[in-house]
Amino acid sequence: MKIALAKINQTAGKIKDNLNKISDYIFNAEKEKCDLTVFPEFAVCGGYCGDLLLNKDFIEENICASNEIIKKSNIPVICGTITKDDKEGLLNSVSLFNKEFSAVVSAKHTLNDSAFNDEKYFKKKTVVDAVKIANKNIMFVVTDSCETVNENIATIFKETKIKPDMVFILGCSPYYYGKAEEYKSLMKNLAVQTKTDFGFLNMLGGNDGYVFDGLAIYVDKNGNFKLTEQSFEEKLIIFDTDGQNIEDKQNDKNKEMYDVLVLGLKDYMRKNNFKKCVLGISGGIDSALVAAVAADAVGAENVTGVLMPSKYTSKESTDCSLELCKNLNIQTKTIPINDIYDVYIKILTPSFEGKGQDLTEENLQARIRSNILMALSNKFGYFVLCTGNKSEDAVGYSTLYGDATGGYAPISDLLKKEVYELSRYRNTISKVIPEFIITRPPTAELRENQKDSDSLPEYDILDGILTKILDKQMTYSQIIESGVKEEVLNKVWKLLSVSEYKRRQSPVGTKVSKTAFLRDITLPMSNGYIWKKIQK
Amino acid sequence: MKIALAKINQTAGKIKDNLNKISDYIFNAEKEKCDLTVFPEFAVCGGYCGDLLLNKDFIEENICASNEIIKKSNIPVICGTITKDDKEGLLNSVSLFNKEFSAVVSAKHTLNDSAFNDEKYFKKKTVVDAVKIANKNIMFVVTDSCETVNENIATIFKETKIKPDMVFILGCSPYYYGKAEEYKSLMKNLAVQTKTDFGFLNMLGGNDGYVFDGLAIYVDKNGNFKLTEQSFEEKLIIFDTDGQNIEDKQNDKNKEMYDVLVLGLKDYMRKNNFKKCVLGISGGIDSALVAAVAADAVGAENVTGVLMPSKYTSKESTDCSLELCKNLNIQTKTIPINDIYDVYIKILTPSFEGKGQDLTEENLQARIRSNILMALSNKFGYFVLCTGNKSEDAVGYSTLYGDATGGYAPISDLLKKEVYELSRYRNTISKVIPEFIITRPPTAELRENQKDSDSLPEYDILDGILTKILDKQMTYSQIIESGVKEEVLNKVWKLLSVSEYKRRQSPVGTKVSKTAFLRDITLPMSNGYIWKKIQK
Repeated sequence: MKIALAKINQTAGKIKDNLNKISDYIFNAEKEKCDLTVFPEFAVCGGYCGDLLLNKDFIEENICASNEIIKKSNIPVICGTITKDDKEGLLNSVSLFNKEFSAVVSAKHTLNDSAFNDEKYFKKKTVVDAVKIANKNIMFVVTDSCETVNENIATIFKETKIKPDMVFILGCSPYYYGKAEEYKSLMKNLAVQTKTDFGFLNMLGGNDGYVFDGLAIYVDKNGNFKLTEQSFEEKLIIFDTDGQNIEDKQNDKNKEMYDVLVLGLKDYMRKNNFKKCVLGISGGIDSALVAAVAADAVGAENVTGVLMPSKYTSKESTDCSLELCKNLNIQTKTIPINDIYDVYIKILTPSFEGKGQDLTEENLQARIRSNILMALSNKFGYFVLCTGNKSEDAVGYSTLYGDATGGYAPISDLLKKEVYELSRYRNTISKVIPEFIITRPPTAELRENQKDSDSLPEYDILDGILTKILDKQMTYSQIIESGVKEEVLNKVWKLLSVSEYKRRQSPVGTKVSKTAFLRDITLPMSNGYIWKKIQK
Repeated sequence: MKIALAKINQTAGKIKDNLNKISDYIFNAEKEKCDLTVFPEFAVCGGYCGDLLLNKDFIEENICASNEIIKKSNIPVICGTITKDDKEGLLNSVSLFNKEFSAVVSAKHTLNDSAFNDEKYFKKKTVVDAVKIANKNIMFVVTDSCETVNENIATIFKETKIKPDMVFILGCSPYYYGKAEEYKSLMKNLAVQTKTDFGFLNMLGGNDGYVFDGLAIYVDKNGNFKLTEQSFEEKLIIFDTDGQNIEDKQNDKNKEMYDVLVLGLKDYMRKNNFKKCVLGISGGIDSALVAAVAADAVGAENVTGVLMPSKYTSKESTDCSLELCKNLNIQTKTIPINDIYDVYIKILTPSFEGKGQDLTEENLQARIRSNILMALSNKFGYFVLCTGNKSEDAVGYSTLYGDATGGYAPISDLLKKEVYELSRYRNTISKVIPEFIITRPPTAELRENQKDSDSLPEYDILDGILTKILDKQMTYSQIIESGVKEEVLNKVWKLLSVSEYKRRQSPVGTKVSKTAFLRDITLPMSNGYIWKKIQK
């Protein structure tokens, strides 16, 4: 059986364009004489639409657009749609289109996905009808996380009388590192356990900080992979269920994550109609990596790096910033902040009532820099990039309305150690980030001789603790037993719990882990919990 | 039967303090010789704990704390707890404590509450055991929205063999205007339909912008109310199920909403250990109302109003601002922004490449003001209040990192017309807001002779459209038929859909409606949908 999988990158709500793309892909699949063309979940409406799904006109337009597919479908087409019926309400459906008819063949059954509020919009549907295509009984299912796939499939096999020859899963689920391997292993297990072929196709593209990975898998009932495709490019994948295995190269972790960062930013800007972007270049590793990602995402000619030196900015910082911009071939501006800073201090001093210097003056510098970037954004329509990383966000080591500002934060889900890893990786393609930026000790340069390690544990310790808290969900005792000092753990927990309010006001960024802030991790802002060793 | 309802205000995660309060209330109920004391959902852990619920130590501490209640319970105590068993996992439970034992008598059954991700943390439990107290069979249920109450109760009556004499519902659900009436009517209908007494007790207090209303209701099987208590104060309510109806005065809408705003801000500051707050006073209605709410929440002596005039600030604005501060008896500072603004322009002009004045210069003024407030916050530990309202947030009529900044936005869920209504209401208590502020046309004063209506429809039109879109979910055609001009609706929709990114970075504020941004309404940030009349 020859199947065409349409790995497409749709925009949420852009129904007409999304429909046109679907038509083009069907046309090409037909030319290749495929038996079936498959599109992912939400192929017509794009994902995620949020409360657009409460808009009756939007639903109506989606249904009209889906009906248009009938006319195009000279071969069977399977497509993730939104459907509505008086009895069942709104469904996150799979529709079959074939010449002169269309039918809802299934709809999402397990609506327990906390990130996207499925239950707010959709009703559940448990019955799945098998469809006969090219003499095979095929069941199509919508689902979007490893946990729900298992539950869904179990239910289907329990409730079904005719055992299918093939189960095909449509998804629109976000990337995190490690997901492809999890899904491959899951599909293989399901195939072998149920002695059924299993296929999977995910949506592609960046939307609001989620990157859909476009993962496509096909594994036969004996557990042999026939297709594993995990590049981040739109394409029509054509394969034979009885053919040889088509596998693209196993991605290197750093390459994979870097490509996701590039796609996430590129799509956010494109889908919001921004062409050019601007960011502050400090001479540190974070802004260096973001500049590289930006140049790769939208072209160096569309990126402006702004140096905003103060009296605390070292000559080395300025030199390596200029070298970075030159290597990347991006535009550079230099706008010193001293004069602005001095006037603020003059105006504010009477109100400071004789109090000495403290964090106030440091934060002020960061806020002046943000104002300058926002002024350039307002004047020229540049999109402002935030350079914050996950380690900083975790402990609130950033200035609210200062460096923590921008339309998008490309590396906000990277731990500091990952920032270094991806910077080194990027340099293997072409050496753009000066070695000095990679090897110097991290500093915010907001006062004389400042180092990040004055306020925080060294980043390798901090990142280790964050991994133990966020990813491994270890207990206090387990973390202490792993060799972390109590006073250090207490400090990190305190900082993590008091900086939730900052994270809630942060720009959205690309999710690359299972524990992205604003996405997967939510602490109370008024948090009275003091974590400590439990006395038993 | 004499029942004590403990209407308490707990802090999320603050287990020890929460437990102490529970002990005190039990002690007092015992003194009054009550047959039963009832505490709301999440009484021990506080609500909402978010990902604290993933922390194993936190769960363990909660369970230990709950066990402490046993020792205190000389009379039967019903309390919302978190429990765990190996088979069922984590449960959002109701526990009975009585002298020497405790037992889980039920747990939340319908976990479809989209706002709080119940499904991420808890397992479902469908079986509810009736408990015999004072010779009555009582069923206790945890639930937190009108929709789920109905579903829950239906399931309970279906699955239960012994018909209960009383069903008592424990909640920890957020206030919105109109909720008390909805719940009263729901309880009455359930009581009459099932010929069973119904009780309800909700948590009290502000947490992260949600205000739990502490609503307490008891209605007998004939539909007679025995208790309706909807004040926003902690108290031990004691009543007799066979006694006379105890009803507090029906709240006036404006009084009720104003009290909620005061409690929301007061609790946010208290639970985050802030004593003093600061805000910019512009001479407009929004900052006037926020200043009044702040003075009522934390005391006038803890509020500082800062006037930050520019060359566009009229003498009238300054005069009425000073009058407001004097009436409220709050501290006042005046910090002019002209000098700072002029330096920015001097420094930025070469980068502006000869482009004329536009929004850039207006936004810059708002951002300078934010920097000043944040500097005072950093220097003195003041909590910064944001003065934005819902009408502005809806259409993005605010400056990101300018006026849209602060730790809390007390009136962010009020439409502009409600800002006026509550201001007039506040003046009926004592005349603090100068009449000129209420009657002048709204202006941001960011350029010569600016009025809000230069950029936006008049607020009464705008608010009307927003209500039709957000609350009534009307179709495009229905809104046009109601008398709105197409170009006006198109403009409002455009502004609403392109300003989602701003709302996502806004400070949290008190929810008072069913359609609060950041809470109940989420649009895609990359939103390709153009709303228009559907061609059929």
